[in-house]
Amino acid sequence: MSTTTSTQWQLIARPTGEPTRDNVSPVQVELPELTTGEVRVRNTFLSVDPYMRGRMNEGRSYVAPYALNETMGGAAVGEVIESNAESLSVGTLVQHQLGWRDISQGPADQFTALPNVPGVSPSLFLSVLGITGITAWTGLTQIAELKHGDTVFVSGAAGGVGTMVGQIARLLGASRVVGSAGTAEKVELLTSKYGYDAAFNYRDGDVAGQLRKAAPDGIDVYFDNVGGEHLSAALGAFNDGGRAAICGAISLYNATADTGIQNSSNIVTRGLTLKGFTMPSYFHLAPQFAEAMRGWLSDGKIAYDETITDGIDNAFDAFTGMMNGANVGKAIVRL
Amino acid sequence: MSTTTSTQWQLIARPTGEPTRDNVSPVQVELPELTTGEVRVRNTFLSVDPYMRGRMNEGRSYVAPYALNETMGGAAVGEVIESNAESLSVGTLVQHQLGWRDISQGPADQFTALPNVPGVSPSLFLSVLGITGITAWTGLTQIAELKHGDTVFVSGAAGGVGTMVGQIARLLGASRVVGSAGTAEKVELLTSKYGYDAAFNYRDGDVAGQLRKAAPDGIDVYFDNVGGEHLSAALGAFNDGGRAAICGAISLYNATADTGIQNSSNIVTRGLTLKGFTMPSYFHLAPQFAEAMRGWLSDGKIAYDETITDGIDNAFDAFTGMMNGANVGKAIVRL
Repeated sequence: MSTTTSTQWQLIARPTGEPTRDNVSPVQVELPELTTGEVRVRNTFLSVDPYMRGRMNEGRSYVAPYALNETMGGAAVGEVIESNAESLSVGTLVQHQLGWRDISQGPADQFTALPNVPGVSPSLFLSVLGITGITAWTGLTQIAELKHGDTVFVSGAAGGVGTMVGQIARLLGASRVVGSAGTAEKVELLTSKYGYDAAFNYRDGDVAGQLRKAAPDGIDVYFDNVGGEHLSAALGAFNDGGRAAICGAISLYNATADTGIQNSSNIVTRGLTLKGFTMPSYFHLAPQFAEAMRGWLSDGKIAYDETITDGIDNAFDAFTGMMNGANVGKAIVRL
Repeated sequence: MSTTTSTQWQLIARPTGEPTRDNVSPVQVELPELTTGEVRVRNTFLSVDPYMRGRMNEGRSYVAPYALNETMGGAAVGEVIESNAESLSVGTLVQHQLGWRDISQGPADQFTALPNVPGVSPSLFLSVLGITGITAWTGLTQIAELKHGDTVFVSGAAGGVGTMVGQIARLLGASRVVGSAGTAEKVELLTSKYGYDAAFNYRDGDVAGQLRKAAPDGIDVYFDNVGGEHLSAALGAFNDGGRAAICGAISLYNATADTGIQNSSNIVTRGLTLKGFTMPSYFHLAPQFAEAMRGWLSDGKIAYDETITDGIDNAFDAFTGMMNGANVGKAIVRL
């Protein structure tokens, strides 16, 4: 055992609006020797996700705010390189929540061993087989209670969650799946690769009008990653009994003003249900999800993209790029 | 059998904003003789309700729009005065949906016989024992899934539904019930008569601030009769897992602009559920409701008010008065 230096990203000032390099700092941390029951992990992939923006605020959120001048957390996978714990031997592939650093160490129970599956990149445990996959599946099956024949609208459809939502919705019997994204290239991918029946670029404006064209008979389910104007448009397009799974509101995370949601009177007149959800309440369903997703993957029924950024020094740029829509599929930092 | 003249209120022009006497007309209708299977009913009480404003619009709502130049419908009770149907004899007390007129007639299956309960005004079948009571009960038990110990916030708390919501919430185990209304007199009644722990006058301004004072530990359930600023304030005050039963949006019914709902990002961060409901989907629960409410009533546990307007000629004024908050408890027209 030995000491090691680790590069770790710390929040040094809470952002107003869009986070900048002034809000964070990569810090060289001298790691102590392992104590009994601890392991040291060399991270190979880090996840950067929209919810992290919420943790940069002081205010209440569904996960605790990041502390100032402490290393931020997040999902990561890596390999055990030193072990003082019987349960995890050197060389084991593990998943954990101590991201935003190149080396993680701590008690063994903070790390979960992963299977080495031939042909499957460990990064997929941060996406298709992990949090983005189960988020998409949970939102459709548990929150929106997707029914056979539903028309489904997905915002942020080319992102890590959105690319999964469209495909899972079709596999579970949706009759029409419509998505929005922020570039022409993403819109093209949605229909050519991700099984969407129609898609539009919200930056072309008039989200409500574009949605009406893409789903002329209205929508039954809305999977919301974006909030704001997209949620207003969905409320205007819902058929009676429509259900919204509210997973995120990325359009609002950097916003400094609340422009409000329109069409709220349809909630009563059309008998709508809007349900916000965050994954910690649904992790007990992981085995059920994993069984379904492994089947679909091995049958070749799930397409996916990763937008890879290399190097711990570029982790913050990977995060801000993802927040601005630079990614297709899951945004990942590879170390 | 004979012909009879009936005074009936017809919609003659769809309102923009607040309905006026230019939008409606009391018409003298010559009723034909009864045909086989029909009955004629002298109405004794008519119900005027907020949802009727929605039916005056052309647009889609959960009930069909009123047709122009036809008599409007609505809940009423009355007495059979002529019968050509075996199932309903003269003198029977009945309830029906052919309101907005002094005499109703049609096939017997459009009328439901009511019990004559000593000491119970038939008007209560339009309120406590009828639509407002079951609406309050359904919203709490089926939509908001009220739990023991919840803090409940009710808007429009001094209205027909709101006065029931507060009392039923307490009977079902809520630990704190907070209401808003539009006059000092109503606010006083909420705490002195209707079992509210705290109440405020929304016309004093700053709904969010007043709600924070009345429910300093946040709210778990919001029963929404009002929409708009009240819904925004509730979204800002919810504890994690909060649930809104969206029953009405009276603040928006006459509005010509959509000012939007604030605090929508809390839907995801606090895991909120907002559920709109309209009673037709829940009428199958009427027996379960009736059993509970009759028990509470006979135990003297339910207080109620009726705001009575006399005469078919004043039915429209009763409606606009109710829309402007002139009523305490259920607004009723007595003929």
